[in-house]
Amino acid sequence: MSASAGNTIKCKAAVCWGAGEPLKIEEVEVAPPKAHEVRIHILYTGKSLRICHTDEYTRSGKDSEGVFPVILGHEGGGIVESVGEGVTSVAVGDHVIPLYTAECGECKFCKSGKTNLCGKVRATQGRGLMPDETVRFTCNGKPIYHFMGTSTFSQYTVVADVSVVAVNPKASLEKVCLLGCGITTAWGAVVKQQGISGSTVAVFGCGAIGLGVISTAKLVGASRVIAVDTNLGKESWAKKFGATDFVNPTNLQGDQKIQDYLVQETDGGLDFTFDCTGNVHVMRAALEACHKGWGVSTIIGVAAAGQEISTRPFQLVTGRTWRGTAFGGVKGRTELPGLVDDYLNGNVKIDEFVTHRRKLSELYDGFHDMHTGECIRCVVDMQD
Amino acid sequence: MSASAGNTIKCKAAVCWGAGEPLKIEEVEVAPPKAHEVRIHILYTGKSLRICHTDEYTRSGKDSEGVFPVILGHEGGGIVESVGEGVTSVAVGDHVIPLYTAECGECKFCKSGKTNLCGKVRATQGRGLMPDETVRFTCNGKPIYHFMGTSTFSQYTVVADVSVVAVNPKASLEKVCLLGCGITTAWGAVVKQQGISGSTVAVFGCGAIGLGVISTAKLVGASRVIAVDTNLGKESWAKKFGATDFVNPTNLQGDQKIQDYLVQETDGGLDFTFDCTGNVHVMRAALEACHKGWGVSTIIGVAAAGQEISTRPFQLVTGRTWRGTAFGGVKGRTELPGLVDDYLNGNVKIDEFVTHRRKLSELYDGFHDMHTGECIRCVVDMQD
Repeated sequence: MSASAGNTIKCKAAVCWGAGEPLKIEEVEVAPPKAHEVRIHILYTGKSLRICHTDEYTRSGKDSEGVFPVILGHEGGGIVESVGEGVTSVAVGDHVIPLYTAECGECKFCKSGKTNLCGKVRATQGRGLMPDETVRFTCNGKPIYHFMGTSTFSQYTVVADVSVVAVNPKASLEKVCLLGCGITTAWGAVVKQQGISGSTVAVFGCGAIGLGVISTAKLVGASRVIAVDTNLGKESWAKKFGATDFVNPTNLQGDQKIQDYLVQETDGGLDFTFDCTGNVHVMRAALEACHKGWGVSTIIGVAAAGQEISTRPFQLVTGRTWRGTAFGGVKGRTELPGLVDDYLNGNVKIDEFVTHRRKLSELYDGFHDMHTGECIRCVVDMQD
Repeated sequence: MSASAGNTIKCKAAVCWGAGEPLKIEEVEVAPPKAHEVRIHILYTGKSLRICHTDEYTRSGKDSEGVFPVILGHEGGGIVESVGEGVTSVAVGDHVIPLYTAECGECKFCKSGKTNLCGKVRATQGRGLMPDETVRFTCNGKPIYHFMGTSTFSQYTVVADVSVVAVNPKASLEKVCLLGCGITTAWGAVVKQQGISGSTVAVFGCGAIGLGVISTAKLVGASRVIAVDTNLGKESWAKKFGATDFVNPTNLQGDQKIQDYLVQETDGGLDFTFDCTGNVHVMRAALEACHKGWGVSTIIGVAAAGQEISTRPFQLVTGRTWRGTAFGGVKGRTELPGLVDDYLNGNVKIDEFVTHRRKLSELYDGFHDMHTGECIRCVVDMQD
């Protein structure tokens, strides 16, 4: 056990005090982990871009279920500082990645063998609480809510033991922290979809998720990967990650719809499409760009609250399938160690996604990087 | 060859002269089959109920692509009267079922191994024409359009050779004519869906398709089959076909939504749901009644033109799949002979669906039977 074990730790964190307010670097107190909890010294945290900008979505107040004040951040890497009673899966000193999609191995969901969604801590996590219905963060005496069971925008955080996984310490946490969300989501969405080898694929949105999907689709042997983005600057990025074609939907002749263009261009439509935008209109286009009879469209992006997808049912009756995925269908505790090894072996790209680095004091600036669209992924050094 | 081979045949048919007009029994001329065409002496034709009432949908004028005058009817059985040049798959005297979903075995779709949708005659069929862009029916000198490539509301009809299959003559055509649409659609939607054995199923709509889905779900070993219909009279029908439960969505306490009721009643939702209504609001309920993480909802019903389905994308992102099926995914020429044998062996119900019989002269009355909701399936004796 470290010297700090059992004591409250004072450290810096980026606190969001209310909906729409900027993040403020504050000194917070982080209580010791209770039974089946793990306190982690967070070294790096990632910020997401475009679709998976869940942190920004909550900060802005658009997430109607958001609670405040809160410490955001759901993509990070760190070292276990101390563990509560009964924790056996990780130990002090382990290099770990917090998991916003827990894996208890015991609930109906985990036992089903059909999904990575775990029911164990879902209810409390959704309300910004630890499983015992309390919080571990305070600031100036005020309790601060957790976020997605991870709260990586703090130098120290506490998570449930089902919400963290130890990975190979040879891998730089500055890089593999990004496996906490976007890159893993993209990877899983492709590798867990049967039949992509030899098939045609279209990817809507070339942020980090979209680029990850492109890269993984090429990795598993897709015959053609068409990248779709309204930002022409993304063409070189998409090609760098393996796209064979790039289409800007705003540049089509005669106001042709992107789905009609793609169906024409591919002699009937794509075998697989992926929405990586979170835009419900794009989700529809992605479905309708699928080939009649067998095309499968996967929604990865998270839409704004209250928005709905729609299409004519004929699209489905004639053989298209509409599905979605969360965290790429990946079971974090079971699969992330292997994914880290894949990275070390050169089979999974991570370094290529990092366009920006920031200090903790600049964490909120990172949000502005996101808005410019020039940032794919920004890693924040939490010690600095 | 029969004596009539090569000659135009005069016979009776039910003609719809315009959108919204009643069907009128007329004397029509049926030209001989051209190359790769088959002329069939139709003995029996079925009329569909509720969702698959495609004939009624076109007659009413709601189908914006309907063409008139037309001979409707897409579910029938008959005997081959003569064949055109190059026809090898059926011979004069064969007992046959016309197929509105053709199977050429040679197109991209047929060769894919992934779908029963055949592209060979799709374009002309959709415009009420034979593959050579002409029609075989005339009435009082006026050309009459074909319908769905079948036009079974005529004592003689002409179909493409890819749109007809010979079946075991031991099976009564009065019964197996119903395999031309509804019963096969229901059967295929279930048996081609992996994983129904041991799973929970909800079936929305207890017309012929719904009852077929219920019956087949029990046949393949579903652990629980919940039938949903607003018509209380359907409860006994549903139970007779194998439903374990019956729910009337209009009778739920406190205006609870049917999907919320079912999710609660089944500890999280159904493994599989089927929409057999054609109502887009019911399609949504069927999707949202699925279990998070793995539930699969299949649309079988055909919605009215212009109507759209919608839901929150979160429903898909959290692991539900929305799909559909046409003719149950069944390849008619390959699979119907086996299904007829299954019927002869007692493994597929047909007789139980037949509630009404009509003469050709009463064919249009049959549409009224449909409207009352008391009819599951009506078979019309075309000789009478």
